[in-house]
Amino acid sequence: MFEAKLGNAALLKKIIEAIKDLVTDAPFDCSENAMCLQAMDSSHVALVSMKLEVGLFETYRCDRTINLGMSLANMAKALKCANNDDTCLIRYEENDADSITFAFEDTKRGKMQEVTVKMMDIDNEHLGIPDQDYAAVVTMPSGEFQKTCRDLAMFSDSLTITVTKAGIVFTGKGDTGSSVVNYAPTKNADNDDDDAVLIVVKEPVNVSFSIKYMNHFTKATGLSQKVKISLCNNIPVVIEYGIEENGYLRFYLAPKIDEDENPMDD
Amino acid sequence: MFEAKLGNAALLKKIIEAIKDLVTDAPFDCSENAMCLQAMDSSHVALVSMKLEVGLFETYRCDRTINLGMSLANMAKALKCANNDDTCLIRYEENDADSITFAFEDTKRGKMQEVTVKMMDIDNEHLGIPDQDYAAVVTMPSGEFQKTCRDLAMFSDSLTITVTKAGIVFTGKGDTGSSVVNYAPTKNADNDDDDAVLIVVKEPVNVSFSIKYMNHFTKATGLSQKVKISLCNNIPVVIEYGIEENGYLRFYLAPKIDEDENPMDD
Amino acid sequence: MFEAKLGNAALLKKIIEAIKDLVTDAPFDCSENAMCLQAMDSSHVALVSMKLEVGLFETYRCDRTINLGMSLANMAKALKCANNDDTCLIRYEENDADSITFAFEDTKRGKMQEVTVKMMDIDNEHLGIPDQDYAAVVTMPSGEFQKTCRDLAMFSDSLTITVTKAGIVFTGKGDTGSSVVNYAPTKNADNDDDDAVLIVVKEPVNVSFSIKYMNHFTKATGLSQKVKISLCNNIPVVIEYGIEENGYLRFYLAPKIDEDENPMDD
Repeated sequence: MFEAKLGNAALLKKIIEAIKDLVTDAPFDCSENAMCLQAMDSSHVALVSMKLEVGLFETYRCDRTINLGMSLANMAKALKCANNDDTCLIRYEENDADSITFAFEDTKRGKMQEVTVKMMDIDNEHLGIPDQDYAAVVTMPSGEFQKTCRDLAMFSDSLTITVTKAGIVFTGKGDTGSSVVNYAPTKNADNDDDDAVLIVVKEPVNVSFSIKYMNHFTKATGLSQKVKISLCNNIPVVIEYGIEENGYLRFYLAPKIDEDENPMDD
Repeated sequence: MFEAKLGNAALLKKIIEAIKDLVTDAPFDCSENAMCLQAMDSSHVALVSMKLEVGLFETYRCDRTINLGMSLANMAKALKCANNDDTCLIRYEENDADSITFAFEDTKRGKMQEVTVKMMDIDNEHLGIPDQDYAAVVTMPSGEFQKTCRDLAMFSDSLTITVTKAGIVFTGKGDTGSSVVNYAPTKNADNDDDDAVLIVVKEPVNVSFSIKYMNHFTKATGLSQKVKISLCNNIPVVIEYGIEENGYLRFYLAPKIDEDENPMDD
Repeated sequence: MFEAKLGNAALLKKIIEAIKDLVTDAPFDCSENAMCLQAMDSSHVALVSMKLEVGLFETYRCDRTINLGMSLANMAKALKCANNDDTCLIRYEENDADSITFAFEDTKRGKMQEVTVKMMDIDNEHLGIPDQDYAAVVTMPSGEFQKTCRDLAMFSDSLTITVTKAGIVFTGKGDTGSSVVNYAPTKNADNDDDDAVLIVVKEPVNVSFSIKYMNHFTKATGLSQKVKISLCNNIPVVIEYGIEENGYLRFYLAPKIDEDENPMDD
């Protein structure tokens, strides 16, 4: 049996809304310590990795490690039924092996709502993500990052990120226009300042990505005031949204091959 | 001549918006005591019945009983022109027999707006609705009823309502998921409490309906904080929105035949 | 070189949003005293005329009179990147002759964003607009004018404006309905009252226009609380939105030929 209760259904709702357009079906790995998810997007370009640690739940019981395959579209429908203040109990029982139940409760109203969703068979190929030592790590307001990705998509399909000690620069170029957005690191900022831009650079980075995927990732903006961007040349970027100190939603995206090195590629 | 003035155009606007997608054209029966409407929806499954008593109007004059046939789409266009605080005068004069005028006035601004809408010929077959003694009558917040119907429509086409002394249960089942919503009766509630769920049961009821129609009916949610649901097994349900103690908007819908009793009906 | 800085990007954003569906490409005439634009809509029925005087800008430098041809769609994309409180620097340099740069700055955040948009070759036929002595000039709340045009478009394609000392009357007639909106002049109003309807009539006016174009013009409503409507029989109307006492956005539209005088035209 697996049974875990979130004090607030809104958290799971936001996570599923953020990834459901990227990943159709996904396996939720439930163990003693955490509920995890790892899945490639349907075109196998981006990787989504979620971890919800026990500390996020009001109650948590996992008798044995299990893997719950879910259609994220159906899970999103179920979660839409919850009011944001409702508690959300996730329940799986071995004797009802093909479905998961989400129970939402609004104790003030004497209202109880249960939505049961059919499970899916999903091939679960858990990818080992190697630990990486990144050349540059930038923490910035997630809303700013979202707006910058949207702005650059006006004229461009790709987004170049350049990080130096002087700041982080986002560049997008297209046939009819181009954009450059520049953030200087915030002076005297500490880690608790949600509005700060913090930049740690071991060596400068200059790397390009598909904007389309970045705009998918930033649907997670509502999860956290801050986003952490970890970069190395020629290595997938990690876009991370922390979840209340007890979990995260991470997106990995491989860089575009530099067009200047591929003059035939025009 | 028929001339009736509402202190507030918003009331009529809400009524017409609530029913215009269900009923295309409808006859307004105007008599000394009230303005009434009764119409089947275009697929002849649901019945709409409206009554606006004289008490709702600031002024009311009806020289003789008349029947004004209107396109609800055109009437909705006319009412959209009114600001919610405008007064709304409805006027029909025999010597201008093919149209009705809606006059909206905003006295503060010195603004006067008149919209004239062509009338329609409508066969007026007034259905006698028999008085019915219902097995269960539930009064609940109209917003809760609306949300429940929407939630259940996520996975299901039909809605089963079960009422017992313990509460009212809404159930919807589909191929990929199912939902159950449970309301206990509010303890120590009185009739004036808009948030209360009040349940009067003579005998338990278990009956199923098309969710599509319920979702049409709940467009009237803005008319009243409360909705009254009157049920009997095998008899049309009545969904009633009261209008300021001086009228109502009621929807009648026949139950679905129980699929268990009709195994051929698959 | 041309370089001009607005304290607030929102102003230019609103102007371009208001005219971009009417005019595809337009020349911005920049001179020592002002930035101007004059363009016919694509069907050559309406004329747009904009003037932004030096006083509207925080800094303004124009070395010689130049003409900057822009795609308004691309310019709108660039301006969408600005937050409303950002400053907006417009820059054109002769040595980068085929593009204009919009630089948005949010000094509080240490954020700097530059969007560069390719220029267009545009035939610049500056039309002389003769000074006109209008028979009637009406100043009214711009929101009221917008709503009236929208309301009348419900049933009608054309809008008849009648101005007398008694007030301004807007009329629209269609097959299924018709509307009349009447504004009396505000008593004891002064020019500073944004809610006032002020009417100056030398001789009564009665003239008809295409509502479609009026609904285009009223997209400028956000620019000013008031709109000034200048009318003469058989002469284009001027719909003017003032810009902070230092500029304007004006729309000119020729009247429809009176159908009564053209009985064959049915």
